[in-house]
Parts: sequence; C-alpha cells; structure tokens
Amino acid sequence: MAPSQNEPDSGTPDESAAAPRGLSRRGLLGFAMGTAGLAVGGGIGLGVGTAAGRAQAAEASASVYDFYGAHQAGITTPVQDHLHFASFDMMARTDRADLIELLQDWSYAASRMAAGLDVSATGAVGGSLEAPPDDTGEALGLSASGLTITFGFGPTLFEADGVDRFGIASKRPSELERLPGFLGDDLQPLLSDGDLCIQACADDPQVAVHAIRNLSRIAFGRARLRWSQLGFGRTSRTTAAQQTPRNLFGFKDGTANILSDDTEALADNVWVASADTPEWMAGGSYLVARKIAMLIETWDRVRLAEQQDIIGRDKGEGAPLSGGDEFTEPDFDKTNADGTPTIPVDSHVRLAHPDMNGGTQLLRRGYNYVDGNNELGRLDAGLFFLSYQRRPQQFIDVQRSLSTDVMNEYIQHIGSGLWAVPPGAAAGSYVGAELFA
Amino acid sequence: MAPSQNEPDSGTPDESAAAPRGLSRRGLLGFAMGTAGLAVGGGIGLGVGTAAGRAQAAEASASVYDFYGAHQAGITTPVQDHLHFASFDMMARTDRADLIELLQDWSYAASRMAAGLDVSATGAVGGSLEAPPDDTGEALGLSASGLTITFGFGPTLFEADGVDRFGIASKRPSELERLPGFLGDDLQPLLSDGDLCIQACADDPQVAVHAIRNLSRIAFGRARLRWSQLGFGRTSRTTAAQQTPRNLFGFKDGTANILSDDTEALADNVWVASADTPEWMAGGSYLVARKIAMLIETWDRVRLAEQQDIIGRDKGEGAPLSGGDEFTEPDFDKTNADGTPTIPVDSHVRLAHPDMNGGTQLLRRGYNYVDGNNELGRLDAGLFFLSYQRRPQQFIDVQRSLSTDVMNEYIQHIGSGLWAVPPGAAAGSYVGAELFA
Repeated sequence: MAPSQNEPDSGTPDESAAAPRGLSRRGLLGFAMGTAGLAVGGGIGLGVGTAAGRAQAAEASASVYDFYGAHQAGITTPVQDHLHFASFDMMARTDRADLIELLQDWSYAASRMAAGLDVSATGAVGGSLEAPPDDTGEALGLSASGLTITFGFGPTLFEADGVDRFGIASKRPSELERLPGFLGDDLQPLLSDGDLCIQACADDPQVAVHAIRNLSRIAFGRARLRWSQLGFGRTSRTTAAQQTPRNLFGFKDGTANILSDDTEALADNVWVASADTPEWMAGGSYLVARKIAMLIETWDRVRLAEQQDIIGRDKGEGAPLSGGDEFTEPDFDKTNADGTPTIPVDSHVRLAHPDMNGGTQLLRRGYNYVDGNNELGRLDAGLFFLSYQRRPQQFIDVQRSLSTDVMNEYIQHIGSGLWAVPPGAAAGSYVGAELFA
Repeated sequence: MAPSQNEPDSGTPDESAAAPRGLSRRGLLGFAMGTAGLAVGGGIGLGVGTAAGRAQAAEASASVYDFYGAHQAGITTPVQDHLHFASFDMMARTDRADLIELLQDWSYAASRMAAGLDVSATGAVGGSLEAPPDDTGEALGLSASGLTITFGFGPTLFEADGVDRFGIASKRPSELERLPGFLGDDLQPLLSDGDLCIQACADDPQVAVHAIRNLSRIAFGRARLRWSQLGFGRTSRTTAAQQTPRNLFGFKDGTANILSDDTEALADNVWVASADTPEWMAGGSYLVARKIAMLIETWDRVRLAEQQDIIGRDKGEGAPLSGGDEFTEPDFDKTNADGTPTIPVDSHVRLAHPDMNGGTQLLRRGYNYVDGNNELGRLDAGLFFLSYQRRPQQFIDVQRSLSTDVMNEYIQHIGSGLWAVPPGAAAGSYVGAELFA
C-alpha cells in the first residue's frame, strides 16, 4: 500500500467546477477491500455506464458554494440548516506522505460534492459493475444543497505523546493546544479532540451525512472516525438577511453574531493575518467545538421572568431587558427603580458581551442537537457550539467570563475540541498545502 | 393532584383552527413543578402579555394539516422530511381517568401545534412572568411546517403482567400483541415497545422536536418517555408528485408504496373497516416501527452488480432488473441467457412484492437515521422503518418472506414496536375517545 501519484480524472464536460485531480489509488482502495475483494484501481476514472450525475437531477434553485478560495467555505457562508460534524484520528503507522495524500483526496472529493457531484467521475453508478461504486449513492438526485466542507487540524496532528509523526511539529502554532479546563466541565474523551475535523453543513441533512460518510470511507486505512455529531436548527446567522433562530432554551441565539459583510470585524476577530504566526495559517481561523448538554426539563420549569433574567433578553422578541428591539444594543448601566441593574450582572448577554471581554467577538455557527433520551425519559439534547476566532484565547477569555453565568445551572459541557482551520485551497490544490510546502 | 374538569380557553380570533378545549390543570402542573415551584392554574388561558403567536410570524407558503378528521394525520399525508418518534410508558399508579385526561391534553396541544400555534393560548411568552411558560418556545417564529402528530396504543396499555390498569383489557384487538420474533432479530428493550407512541413528522426538524418535547412535558406525572428516534431523509413517498428518495444503501426506496389517492388499496391494506373488530378501531390502522441498523461500511464494499442483485433493481434509475424504468412492474419470469431469473429469487424486490405475499401491501413511512458512530469509527446508521397496515399480520407475512433476503447480511433489526392507531378525533374531541365511550 505504498502511496502513489495522483492521476488526473478523465472528467466530463459538466464537471468544470471540480478539480482536475483524481482520488489517489490509496483513496480508492478502501472501496474494494472487504467481502467483495475485487481489485479496482484501473477501472477508476474511465467513466463507463450511465453515470447519472447528481447535478443533472438537481433543483436549479439550490445554493452552491465553491470549495476553493482564499478562505475555506463554511465559516462566513450563510449558516445552513443542518450539520454533520466529524473528528478523526490518524491511524497507527501512517506517515507524512499518507497525511498529504489523505488531504489531497479529501479536498478533491469535497470540491466535487460541494459542486453537487459524486466523489469521483465514475461516482455511484458510472463505474464497473464488478467493482464497489466510488460513491455511496444516497445523494443521487439531490442538489448541492449549499454544502460546505471545512477541514481542521488538531494539536495532536502536530505532536502526540512527544512524537512528531508527520514532520510538522515545528509548524504547530503555539496557541494550538488542548483548551484549558473550565469550571464545571465534564468532558467525555469520545466527544472531544481529534487529529482532524470535518464540518459539513448543508440545507439537506442527507447531503451533509453523505459527505461525512464518503470522506470517512476515503480515509480508509489512514484515518478513523473518532466521534461525530448531527445538528439541526442553526443557532446563529452570518448574514443580516437570515432570521435569528432559537436554541432549545427557546430564546433567540446569535443576534449579535459577526456577519459575513463586516470585513473589519472579521479581520479583527476571525481571520488569521499574515502578520500572525505561523505563516501557513494566514487566511485561516481557529475552530472551537463544545458539546453543551442542556437540562431542558429543568429549564422548562423556571418561571419566565427568571429565564429572561438569566439570558438578559426577553423571550418573545429577543430585545435586551434594557429595552428596544432585538437589535438594540444592551444598556448595561440602566437600573430598576430599586437601583439594581435592569440587565442582571450574572446574565448571559452581559457576560458574553464584547464590552465585558475587551472587545472580543466570536463568529458562532452552532446547532441544536437531540440524541434520543436517557433512562429517566429526559431528552439528550443541547447545543453543539461552534465558533471561529483569530486566536483561541478569544474563546478562552469569553468562556472564563461565563464562569459566573447563572445559565451554568442548566448546562453541562460534555465535549470539546480545538482545531486550526487552514486557509482555503487554490483550485486544484488541497487544504493544508502551505503546511507541507 | 386529582383530575379536574377541562375548562375552555378564552381563545383569540386567529386560533379558530384549535379546539375549544384547554389543557387540564394536571397537564399544566408539570410546567410549575421543580425549581421555581410557583402555582399556576388560574393564570392559564387569560392570555396576558404580547402573546407573540407562531402563526403571525410564519411563512405563508408552508403546509398546514388539520389534526382533526376521519383518520389521524401523518399516515397518508405527503411524507415530510423529518421525524421525531417517541414511545411512552404510563407511570405507576395512574388510572383510567389519568389516561383519558392525558389523551385529551395531548390531542388539544397537538391540534394547536399542527395549526402552527403554541401548545396553549398563553403559550411561550403570553403567560404570567411569575410562572414557567406553557410552551418551551423554540418553535416561535417557525411555521406549522406541515407538522402531523399521530398517536398509537401499544398492547401493554390494555394489559400488562395480567393487570388491566385502565379498564380496557376487554377492548384490546386480539391482533394487537407483541410482534413475533423474526430470524436475525437482535431487539433492544429500550428501543422497543411502549404503552403509547407519538409520531411527529414535519418539514422542519425543530418543529418535530418541539412537538415531542412539549407532549413529553404535558405528560408529566402520567407517562414517561421510554425511547425516541430522530429521522431525516424520508424513505417513502405517499403522493405521485413526491420524488422517490434514497435510503442509506444508496438505492431508491418506496417506489411501489401505496399512494394517498389509491382509495381501493388504502381500504384493502391500511384502514381498519367497520366490519373489522373492535369497532373503536374503525378508521384506524396498525403501526409497525422497526429500527434497522445498516452495516453501511460492509455494504459499501460490495460490487455494484451484487448490490443490484440483492435489491433487484438498478442503482441509478431504480428500474427492476427485468428492464424498463423505475415505475415498470418487475417481470419475475424473465430469465437470463443461462436460464437463471433476471431478478434473483432471493432479491429484496421479489421477496417483498405483493405477488409473493398474497397481494399484501404496506403503507411505508420510514426515515434514515444516523445516531453518531461506534468505537470502531463506524457510523451508527440505518433505516427507521415505519409501516401502516389494516392488520399486523400483513407486516408479519412480509417480514417472514424476507427471511431469505440476502440483504439480511447487511442489516440488523434492533428495535421493534406495534401500536393500534385509532381513527382521527372529531374537532374538539380527542384521539381514542371511542375506546373509552
């Protein structure tokens, strides 16, 4: 299983949006191993058969976001309705060449899926009948559905247990390290961390699931799924046109998020600049994921006034308790007749506000989740928090501010991860190319 | 906590679609118990405050299905994109009056949510600030989203461990009993059975989750959530206008389903007739749920020809292997040059076909699911199969036919349940009223 050179696909005229690079021979081996056990390799890329492409059947109205660009898609992209997030660990005995090849394969397949295509030119049904299909097929007939696929590198990719497996330890940003513990954390190892992460967002959950499933499959023998999370009901907005959604506490969430047209706030708070180090991260960002379980049955029994005091906003309109509408800036100096602050000192909106955190803002892209229920009949539900920031310290500062947040009585952080999200790939290149240059 | 008479809501002009009945005092008690501990009761139905109703904010284009009618909604209704299914057990020491009151409360709340409204007139934000809100609020601003809520009664509701808890043992249909074991079953108790079930389907998952969450809450002290399941990517269609979706094997699923305008097939196969017994089930149906784990990583390594032989259809178009297009009837007599059947004798389409099952058809409404992944990095994914039929024996016959299905190598039934789904409620009445008449 020696790494091999990528060979260009033959391609078809309607696939100009996809990269010229093909999947590596190694990336295709996973398809053939196992019960069927037939060799493929040579058959790939020849495109026999009907090749019922996804794009042909797709609805014309759906959003399509280019995978390639200065920044990775899926950060400032208008937040889609559904999430499938996955964390991976590199397998034992993999080396630098394996990692590079995996990133090339992933980028190639991601660029195709973002365009509404199968993972390869032969795809789900265009290959040999005597080989397993390259693509698993459940997205046939579905549009691109606004799919974005965003890759991140965890601290352990650079160095784990003192071993520099991939020859990149010297390139680790000093701030890329496991997040510190926070008051009240109850983190589960199998909901936390990982050498690599992939955030797949789409307006159709089947399209997001198809992406993670096929990228997991392409990783065969090189990286293994560590943990994963489905989410629905985005809890943020990244454009002014998007309505502010609600989290499972029933409150609007994401009102004050950084919007994609706020170039200055993005430069200050989200994008790593060329002046920052290391250089390979210029145009990238740092991604924090936190799985936050909500004790919703307990929350639901809190009287409305107390719920609003905890959040610092009214439940109906989302206006700050100091008055106005949803988009009115909170007035933290306003007091009640008895002299107490109208927006309580331990309210979430106050503690999370940039004014209380040295001007720091995070770009949030979280989702609601429900993972069934526990044995007491309570829903296993909460918020899968995702935020992008220029420096991990931004999240750390805000999270420490929240240590006195009364909301902590109703939540529990059970998963956590930090990843360096490199800049976007140039067309035909791959995510992370600068790291290995 | 004695049961009390339901009192009519004051109502508001825009809520004519909802029933005149209000939630019982008992149904509201769950809202007030716990940390806040304040009495409500008197405040309910008075509708003070802004009462930002959901309907006002809703998109006008979304589907709305009436909760009331001859049949329950959610059976022949065009299959929505998302599912939240929940099974409940009645709590110890509950009696007949508790059960009736619960069904009244559930029907009332369901009728409101189906109309795009909160669970009560005061709802999420229209009640007293000093009480927990009646509605949890996460669906504020969302439309009805085609929500249907369908209730079912399990065998154990009628009699459990020889005890007739609710005075209805004599009314149990003889065919309403735990499904027999099938070859290869690996059923988990906490994914199976239950005294009651609720199927919530909607085009927005947050609306389906909101429905189950609020109905669970209303059940406080009377019934407890036993197990629940989220689903996406419907695997059936109930109207000719709906495209046939794909399951996680990548094949079209539901091509030959019973459609909502096929009155004869519905009468023969889905609706319990007046001539059937017992009379209270006339206009109802029997619901089978099966949680079917798919070994998708193994499946994905099967060569395309074998995948197609197992299903009996081609993967691209979904046409039977005997030729034609997706909607061509399979020709089971057609043979290959070597005399073997073109559609293999152990293929799924052959074994499940009405011709092989005495003409029996099931109305299917299943969904794909992904519940994360296991410790080996494999997706915990599959099909949450739901079917409606006039007699449970229809499912039993088809499932027994499938015992030689080669597909069984790639699936595992891990959950199962059977429920009697009563006819729809008359406006202002409740589901199951005929059972207690």
